[in-house]
Amino acid sequence: MSRPIGVFDSGVGGLTVLKALRRRLPNHDFVYFSDTARVPYGRKPKEMVRQFAAEIAFFLLQLDVSSIVIACNTASASALPDLANHISVPVWGVIDPGVEAARRATKTNKVGVIGTKGTIASGVYQRKLEAVGLSVWSQACPMFVHVVEEGLAESEDALVLARHYLSGMPDIDTLILGCTHYPVLAPVIEQVTGSGVVLVSSADVTAEVVAGALSHESPSGPGRLTHYVTGGVPAYQHTAEVIGGVEGRVIPLDVTRLADAGVIAGKDTATR
Amino acid sequence: MSRPIGVFDSGVGGLTVLKALRRRLPNHDFVYFSDTARVPYGRKPKEMVRQFAAEIAFFLLQLDVSSIVIACNTASASALPDLANHISVPVWGVIDPGVEAARRATKTNKVGVIGTKGTIASGVYQRKLEAVGLSVWSQACPMFVHVVEEGLAESEDALVLARHYLSGMPDIDTLILGCTHYPVLAPVIEQVTGSGVVLVSSADVTAEVVAGALSHESPSGPGRLTHYVTGGVPAYQHTAEVIGGVEGRVIPLDVTRLADAGVIAGKDTATR
Repeated sequence: MSRPIGVFDSGVGGLTVLKALRRRLPNHDFVYFSDTARVPYGRKPKEMVRQFAAEIAFFLLQLDVSSIVIACNTASASALPDLANHISVPVWGVIDPGVEAARRATKTNKVGVIGTKGTIASGVYQRKLEAVGLSVWSQACPMFVHVVEEGLAESEDALVLARHYLSGMPDIDTLILGCTHYPVLAPVIEQVTGSGVVLVSSADVTAEVVAGALSHESPSGPGRLTHYVTGGVPAYQHTAEVIGGVEGRVIPLDVTRLADAGVIAGKDTATR
Repeated sequence: MSRPIGVFDSGVGGLTVLKALRRRLPNHDFVYFSDTARVPYGRKPKEMVRQFAAEIAFFLLQLDVSSIVIACNTASASALPDLANHISVPVWGVIDPGVEAARRATKTNKVGVIGTKGTIASGVYQRKLEAVGLSVWSQACPMFVHVVEEGLAESEDALVLARHYLSGMPDIDTLILGCTHYPVLAPVIEQVTGSGVVLVSSADVTAEVVAGALSHESPSGPGRLTHYVTGGVPAYQHTAEVIGGVEGRVIPLDVTRLADAGVIAGKDTATR
């Protein structure tokens, strides 16, 4: 029996990554962890996000996952190197794939990246993009996550915010959607940037990377999907509708006990 | 020993009401319940919000509260009449006090009300304001809660959204801030409406009503404050900073068990 792949996000945005993964790995089992009790991560202190990520990774390891995908840019930016050093299964984030996708897409070597406050403030996209020779414009768009979760991705509210956030955008040919919620906003963002700017979502490239690394496995399938959610099941299912809903079992989880697990994880059981 | 007053909200907005209550009732004990695991309520179906409110009220009754204040406009609009009919302690919402405050403030009898989608769609403010002879303009502002919770109440983002939401505002002299988060946005809203429009927050009037009803009680004080929070303690404390932070003990609570309690409450134990 094959071990499941663990995927986690602060909320429902990571479902865009999960969907891309399941398209490429239809026979694999997946566990999707959604920390809706503590969403959003975007403005929380880096140390707090890192603690949450450690707790969730520890929980996923208890489920015997074969690998972990951090399907959240904020958590990838804050926690990835640390997690990868402390646990024994492979850990992927969404940032390196996004950088790779932008590098492939740009012709002028002038790119932009938009994301949460935490992601943009970390400077990780900017550093990695500059390291491959690109010049970078970046902009935090803290309200975009909420526009999506409110089901307003196609509204006038979204357009007003997109115009505001992108008003200072220089002449670039590629824009990284540096938050897993943002693909839902692509039509509105395109209305502002015009068709001359390629929008890059890391979901597909992340799936490509993970699928490549797991190509030696061939589970018999069909892959099963289980969701664990900290903020209550009906509330999760309702919010997930904005990304196209959820399939599979949804299991509620006590965020308080998760924090206990995190304390244990901080001691010695996170490495296994 | 006096029984505590229970106050609840989906998140941190109700802290504006709690503060007004404690100013008037400094010797009373309070329990503040914050359902951060399932925030925001504003776009969730009415039935879901009603269920959440029933679960929370049942939990508060187990703590032997003397009365309950629904410090959330969305929950007041969806759940108040029902709750008041089913439980034996007094239940107050924030809507009737807001209507009363607007009636006192207006000179032209032309008022406006802004709130979440759920509150505005319920039509409850509109009906109650018209019933006291006022003409009413209403507008849902779904992103305002998030602007506050992101700590962006004084930002350009807030101003852009306020201009957008208030662009159709007719000639009124009073505007009800129909969401407990909105007092934090008052400076930005005033920048758009100008000083000719009185902004009415129901927090103070709610406190006045509740204090009046409890004037026969005289606990020895000083009043103690306990918070129960479904979404994790550090995340709650971090978000609460946007309303000025929290005093008192903060106790985490498993939202899953709360839902179980709600099922029981739905049977027969809610009335006591």
